[in-house]
Amino acid sequence: MLTLGEIAEALSLEFRGASDVPLTGLASLDLAGPQHLSFVSSKKYLRQLDSTGAGAAIIHPDWLDHWSGPSLFCDQPYLAYARATALFDDRPLPAGSIHASAVVDESVSMGANVTVDAGAVIEQGVVLGDNVWVGANVYIGHDCRIGAGTRLHPGTALYYGVLIGEHCTIHANAIIGADGFGFAPSSEGWVKIVQLGTVVVGDHVEIGAGATIDRGALTDTVLADKVILDNQVHIAHNVRVGERTGIAACTGIAGSTTIGADCTFAGMVGVGDHLEIADNVHVNGQGRVSKSLLEPGSYASGTSIQPYRDWSKNAVRFEQLAEMAKRLTALEKQLTQLAGATPEKGDPT
Amino acid sequence: MLTLGEIAEALSLEFRGASDVPLTGLASLDLAGPQHLSFVSSKKYLRQLDSTGAGAAIIHPDWLDHWSGPSLFCDQPYLAYARATALFDDRPLPAGSIHASAVVDESVSMGANVTVDAGAVIEQGVVLGDNVWVGANVYIGHDCRIGAGTRLHPGTALYYGVLIGEHCTIHANAIIGADGFGFAPSSEGWVKIVQLGTVVVGDHVEIGAGATIDRGALTDTVLADKVILDNQVHIAHNVRVGERTGIAACTGIAGSTTIGADCTFAGMVGVGDHLEIADNVHVNGQGRVSKSLLEPGSYASGTSIQPYRDWSKNAVRFEQLAEMAKRLTALEKQLTQLAGATPEKGDPT
Amino acid sequence: MLTLGEIAEALSLEFRGASDVPLTGLASLDLAGPQHLSFVSSKKYLRQLDSTGAGAAIIHPDWLDHWSGPSLFCDQPYLAYARATALFDDRPLPAGSIHASAVVDESVSMGANVTVDAGAVIEQGVVLGDNVWVGANVYIGHDCRIGAGTRLHPGTALYYGVLIGEHCTIHANAIIGADGFGFAPSSEGWVKIVQLGTVVVGDHVEIGAGATIDRGALTDTVLADKVILDNQVHIAHNVRVGERTGIAACTGIAGSTTIGADCTFAGMVGVGDHLEIADNVHVNGQGRVSKSLLEPGSYASGTSIQPYRDWSKNAVRFEQLAEMAKRLTALEKQLTQLAGATPEKGDPT
Repeated sequence: MLTLGEIAEALSLEFRGASDVPLTGLASLDLAGPQHLSFVSSKKYLRQLDSTGAGAAIIHPDWLDHWSGPSLFCDQPYLAYARATALFDDRPLPAGSIHASAVVDESVSMGANVTVDAGAVIEQGVVLGDNVWVGANVYIGHDCRIGAGTRLHPGTALYYGVLIGEHCTIHANAIIGADGFGFAPSSEGWVKIVQLGTVVVGDHVEIGAGATIDRGALTDTVLADKVILDNQVHIAHNVRVGERTGIAACTGIAGSTTIGADCTFAGMVGVGDHLEIADNVHVNGQGRVSKSLLEPGSYASGTSIQPYRDWSKNAVRFEQLAEMAKRLTALEKQLTQLAGATPEKGDPT
Repeated sequence: MLTLGEIAEALSLEFRGASDVPLTGLASLDLAGPQHLSFVSSKKYLRQLDSTGAGAAIIHPDWLDHWSGPSLFCDQPYLAYARATALFDDRPLPAGSIHASAVVDESVSMGANVTVDAGAVIEQGVVLGDNVWVGANVYIGHDCRIGAGTRLHPGTALYYGVLIGEHCTIHANAIIGADGFGFAPSSEGWVKIVQLGTVVVGDHVEIGAGATIDRGALTDTVLADKVILDNQVHIAHNVRVGERTGIAACTGIAGSTTIGADCTFAGMVGVGDHLEIADNVHVNGQGRVSKSLLEPGSYASGTSIQPYRDWSKNAVRFEQLAEMAKRLTALEKQLTQLAGATPEKGDPT
Repeated sequence: MLTLGEIAEALSLEFRGASDVPLTGLASLDLAGPQHLSFVSSKKYLRQLDSTGAGAAIIHPDWLDHWSGPSLFCDQPYLAYARATALFDDRPLPAGSIHASAVVDESVSMGANVTVDAGAVIEQGVVLGDNVWVGANVYIGHDCRIGAGTRLHPGTALYYGVLIGEHCTIHANAIIGADGFGFAPSSEGWVKIVQLGTVVVGDHVEIGAGATIDRGALTDTVLADKVILDNQVHIAHNVRVGERTGIAACTGIAGSTTIGADCTFAGMVGVGDHLEIADNVHVNGQGRVSKSLLEPGSYASGTSIQPYRDWSKNAVRFEQLAEMAKRLTALEKQLTQLAGATPEKGDPT
């Protein structure tokens, strides 16, 4: 339990109300009770303040008129909420020791206060920084280096030679450094291209559960600092992702594509190979990025969901679109002739 | 080996033919031999009865004329087939004991007849119901509760505090309770929102291999009873999935979306965040659900597969559709004027 | 380190230049230094030879005029590059022994020179061929058979009875033989169809990290020889994939579909259930294969990425396409009447 005053101090925020209001957790406005700190992340939620049961709320100082209860003031209430979640963090803590059932090669170099949980396997030459936390049944291949404060959740697998920065979080069963999908066709079938590069992950990177980041073919696959990847994201060989870019679940980036900084990819986007994506590009859900996007901005592809009956009638016509365009142009020409009018701007089919 | 009579009794079905016909397995009509029980799941397969070599068949009693061989009668032959598969189940049985190499915290509470296979790691405060089967190298975080009869296949990872109901099946390497993808933007990059909720899974739920079910941000992510999820499904934080809803492989549901009961999602569907999906909604493969679907029914999006040459000509025109619509409207106006006719129902561009 | 002459001999290629040119690695033309062997994979890269710093290059003998430096000659330079990567392979070698922490049932049959790494669990009746390498924390269920020279990377899980051929590579956390997604609807919800088939994988198959290959319902799921699957590919029950077919990341193949030989599927393709795909079919990224493709050739679906503003105007029109087609036909009829002309080839709506 924390008090309003303690939270205000921890987050360096001004507050209104009794300093000793007890707050045991966070909740959204509609679900909050008197024991909860809530927050108004944008103007459109202001009216929810009328009916909320929250014991206190994080609000923008301009919105004071809408709420007379105990308050924390912040120009960015959603950011303050994010910081407040850390105050109520109840995740289990690391043991600070090496579990007896872990298999750690004697050549492994360990910083201070490293935790290695049960069943983890750490191969020769690995270097673990201070406060690294290796979860249960994790595998770390030969000569990987893991920076200080990084946490590998259970079941993650790092192939040999992977470099992970500081203060990263790798979620369960993610796989970093598996072979890129490189094969040369030959008369006897596919000939494997041994993937001689590795994966380099910067600092403060988060990688989602079940994500796969392949090692490079000749150079490395690179995730810059502060990149965040959601679950089941796939990053192919030689891809480079710029700082602070965020990639939502189930998105796949094909080989040798370079992605700029501060981009966001919604869920299930597919990005083709050997493309260049500029900084500050934002792609909608299930976007099909089959060409480079050299200008910042928002992009989308695909069609919207419709009742099946309507959709099937429209989808059939998509298959005739080129023909429809020709018919439209033909009509325009005919009509122009018929009217004896001056030519309209047509379609140069 | 079972006999026709034994199967009839086990499934409580009427039968025709010698009770002692020996049947060693199940097979589809086209592949069945005299040792196989087969089934006619719908009328359209009736003609396959002419050439099948099956030793016996499950058929609808109305279809008796089409088959003179040994038979089991059921109004729902496909359902009877499903139940019959359980009679031929040859999966290895649980050991009924805790393997010496498993790492089980002494505080773990175990029901009767629990199996924990080699290499599994079970943390403090976990509660396992009767007949729970924890597969090899599974990880169960602090204070999880697993209901009676539930099976966790090898390599699954449950983060702390996850609640799983009774008689569930979680397939290999599924991850339940990893952090939802919650970050607030700030001038220094993304600030992590600690995910303070958990995941609550009902009874009789099946979760596919490699699926990911994230924990909630403030409230919980919830899968109701009898939900079935295929492999590599992704369920984001705060999502709620209603009873008996089935979600096929590679589908992703974004955060805070609520899905009703008895829905079906075909493979690789993407559902956006903060949406509401009614009961009895059915979405076609690769559907792009970017808005709430408040009415039951079937929905689809996208375009059909075409030869690349044809497709590329049509896809180019999609990028000109708004302009084509304007040209169409302009033509209608021109023609109306030209004909001196009464105005047609046009397009209010 | 190798010399030009040694590489030429190993790859059985003619060469030009001093036999003792030392080469420590491979690099692309733009990044290569004097210590690197590079390659010209196609004509369009020939001009990069002007500025490359490569110590030697693999080139087509017809391109001799473009490069005066040390050279290896090959009609298929990309294939020669693929083979050269094997010469610079620096992957850690297998231990050639069974780690003390592995749990191997006494009934397991082992060939010569088998490696089982730490934490692996191998159940009763499993047969491992010569030189099989079982990675850390791998699970191999009862009665699986793994052919000679096959490698299972860390964390992979094979359910019971799975058959893997020789010289296969299964990447980390892949899951082979989990239950197909088979359930019959009933008034009480879904009734599970026990999946009584298994998975049969041929020789020289590569399966990507986190991929899932489900066991068959009554028959088996089959991957033929030399199939290559990228990360997070999903293969449903009863699917058959023909020889040398390559499937890129995040693609999903639904149940009972048969895919021919020598096909390629780009990333994130979805293939529906019960379809037939001919030999030599090639599907573009995010293709939506909802019908059988009985002719060889290239196929695509979907729309191209556009700036969001443009896209949204076009996507709205897609939802009116059937109506637009009708309006177009109506215009054609009207115009024909107006012109008193002979009927044009119209649209039989």
